[in-house]
Amino acid sequence: MAQSEKPLHTLAAHEIAAAIASGETTCEKVARSCLARIAAREPVVKAWAFLDPEQVVADARAIDQHKERGPLHGVPVGIKDIIDTADMPTEMGSPIYCGHQPFADASCVSLLRSAGALILGKTATCEFAGATATVTTNPHNPAHTPGGSSSGSGAAVADFMVPAALGTQTGGSVQRPSSFCGTVGYKPTFGIIDTTGVKPAANSLDTVGLLTRSVEDAELLSRVLTNSTKVAWLKDDAKLRVGLSRTYAWDSADPATRDAVEDAARRLAQAGIAVKDVTLPSSFGDLIETREIINDYERARGMAFEWRTARDTLSPGLAKTIENGLTITRERYADAQIRVERLRRELDGLFADADVWLTPTVHGEAPKGLSFTGDHRFQSIWTQLHNPAVTLPTHAGPNGLPIGIQLVAPQYQDAKLLTAAQFVFRKLGPGPRVQV
Amino acid sequence: MAQSEKPLHTLAAHEIAAAIASGETTCEKVARSCLARIAAREPVVKAWAFLDPEQVVADARAIDQHKERGPLHGVPVGIKDIIDTADMPTEMGSPIYCGHQPFADASCVSLLRSAGALILGKTATCEFAGATATVTTNPHNPAHTPGGSSSGSGAAVADFMVPAALGTQTGGSVQRPSSFCGTVGYKPTFGIIDTTGVKPAANSLDTVGLLTRSVEDAELLSRVLTNSTKVAWLKDDAKLRVGLSRTYAWDSADPATRDAVEDAARRLAQAGIAVKDVTLPSSFGDLIETREIINDYERARGMAFEWRTARDTLSPGLAKTIENGLTITRERYADAQIRVERLRRELDGLFADADVWLTPTVHGEAPKGLSFTGDHRFQSIWTQLHNPAVTLPTHAGPNGLPIGIQLVAPQYQDAKLLTAAQFVFRKLGPGPRVQV
Repeated sequence: MAQSEKPLHTLAAHEIAAAIASGETTCEKVARSCLARIAAREPVVKAWAFLDPEQVVADARAIDQHKERGPLHGVPVGIKDIIDTADMPTEMGSPIYCGHQPFADASCVSLLRSAGALILGKTATCEFAGATATVTTNPHNPAHTPGGSSSGSGAAVADFMVPAALGTQTGGSVQRPSSFCGTVGYKPTFGIIDTTGVKPAANSLDTVGLLTRSVEDAELLSRVLTNSTKVAWLKDDAKLRVGLSRTYAWDSADPATRDAVEDAARRLAQAGIAVKDVTLPSSFGDLIETREIINDYERARGMAFEWRTARDTLSPGLAKTIENGLTITRERYADAQIRVERLRRELDGLFADADVWLTPTVHGEAPKGLSFTGDHRFQSIWTQLHNPAVTLPTHAGPNGLPIGIQLVAPQYQDAKLLTAAQFVFRKLGPGPRVQV
Repeated sequence: MAQSEKPLHTLAAHEIAAAIASGETTCEKVARSCLARIAAREPVVKAWAFLDPEQVVADARAIDQHKERGPLHGVPVGIKDIIDTADMPTEMGSPIYCGHQPFADASCVSLLRSAGALILGKTATCEFAGATATVTTNPHNPAHTPGGSSSGSGAAVADFMVPAALGTQTGGSVQRPSSFCGTVGYKPTFGIIDTTGVKPAANSLDTVGLLTRSVEDAELLSRVLTNSTKVAWLKDDAKLRVGLSRTYAWDSADPATRDAVEDAARRLAQAGIAVKDVTLPSSFGDLIETREIINDYERARGMAFEWRTARDTLSPGLAKTIENGLTITRERYADAQIRVERLRRELDGLFADADVWLTPTVHGEAPKGLSFTGDHRFQSIWTQLHNPAVTLPTHAGPNGLPIGIQLVAPQYQDAKLLTAAQFVFRKLGPGPRVQV
């Protein structure tokens, strides 16, 4: 099927940008195609916290009139509902912020708009980007969770409602929904996407990430957000060196996850790529404890206002995290930060023999039921270490749901990571996709 | 003069807390004393961006009725006007935010309230905590700048309008007004005071700091904000080891600053404290370049909304910073971050022989005129390195204006820094004070 024959809502962001730039289509047509898909599927998937179809069409028409053409001209993007938008409410998945209208766009939203993007709507989030589920379902099977906390972003992108969405990750909130829903999930190096206007969950861990259906789109959006140089994709015979890192959590993974990672390693090796086992030293097991200390200490402070004025409206789980965080002394918090910083320094030396590491994204396929959004043990390692990570939706689990594999690179080597991820995704091909 | 005979607005925060706790006075009486001082002096000093005396009295009465008594019960605090308050406008020193009313208190404001503090009002800030001056004058001489960007916080505390105020530092915005106005300025280790609800200037540098008239007060407020353990102050015969670090900027300092630092070193040595020269390796000169890259790159992104929607209302200086920041590639930014991180690691080893370093705060006394708020060359070294730093107002310049000295400690050694600072301040005594 030629690109022009595909339904517009199934195109990738870079394909939409090209089709609009060439005059083959318009932002309005793309927006209407996305809106039609949403109208058909939203009653089941429930990915959107806010969507005003009339406003979307009006905005799309305005974009079609713009003379200035940015690299995302006309491309629809969904925004996780803890990220401020000046023209749409930002409700944080909490009754405290019901109808809350921010004054300003978050930095990332504003940069997308300046590049010509159409902000389609707000995607459902777990309460304050934590663990308390929203109503969103997995687009592959509504009886299963889409993962959290960027639940709506994962579900909407996987379901072809929108080609790309912003998420955030403090534990595993970009990677987990990406694996469960079957999207590409890119969590950049900590700090390179500005977090201004994003409700903090834990300041030293919070990272804005991208959920897309292709690595090319993750690269395109990140280029706009960080002013990076366009990457050169790897040629078919590139000499990529991959380290296979099972991590300390390996034994807790379901067989489906272990099979996916080992299958990926095997097929990459068969394709002539150097794959070598790498061992994360046992000192990295510390990350289980430091994660709780740092997350809870920072969470309790970031939510000081909500705790003081509206604690009865918080979920019991979040209230417990805050209560715990308030008991942690600064001395214990500082000690945890120092320990993590030591591990970051240790990790630097471990990447000498590999360009990227291959590692599990999550313990298994999306669990049944909507209340448990999955756990962060495989994702939060890299969030804490501030490394960039990409989840690729390459495999399937026993229920036919997607299972992702994760690639990780050293801090600030985001360009190398994305080129490696695009190469690996080409070699392995996609796992299950939602029917269009 | 016994404490009970001193005017209430001249007491330190910890003295006020004790006097209210013992029933010797009330929050209302303290508030009225501060308001009287402000009424007398504000026409000249212009320290406040927002102050509603009737509301202050009503809030003080409400605090006097509270049964729960926190460690700051009844203590008035001023809040820099880039820090959100749910019950007062937050105008950022910019017409863009004229009358802007945030939904929530910033984390630091909420934690102060939970400890019983009375939020007195908002203190004037340079435009978005940058370099464009506000109307505030130096309380020692209104023809001179109070320094920036926490101009109102420095002036209000030095002028005995309020015992303590919150500021923020991205370059030198806590330390510089502290030196120019004659307050204690404490910039904690990066990250230990949560920045939620504080308008970002440059995310990886922004630090909430405290401006007070005593080190004891800086310790008290920071204990509330970070849940730290109460420090044990040093005894008179403590064996403190001080490193004298002139830094690469030494030759650019006025004689008054060099004299102040060397006089401090001499008198500390005379008092039996080990003072030893330490040299910052020449590699640290990199910080001049990295500061501009990191600050401008992050500033441009943090201000993406204001740039997109209201750039004509920004000052030419800030517009230029943003324009520059938008041209910086992510690759150049990442390189700068990697270089600074390398220096942080290098610095760790240099503190082996000293508990704290003694170093200049700023190049001289407050310059004449209100438009130039001073430069950050001596302060931004430590802001970039994420070290905690305290300015002590110990000396005077040729015009009789205050000159501070700066003490610095390794990352996370805030308790050691504060105890050393209190000890040094006891030994050296205060410089010029505003007449009450």
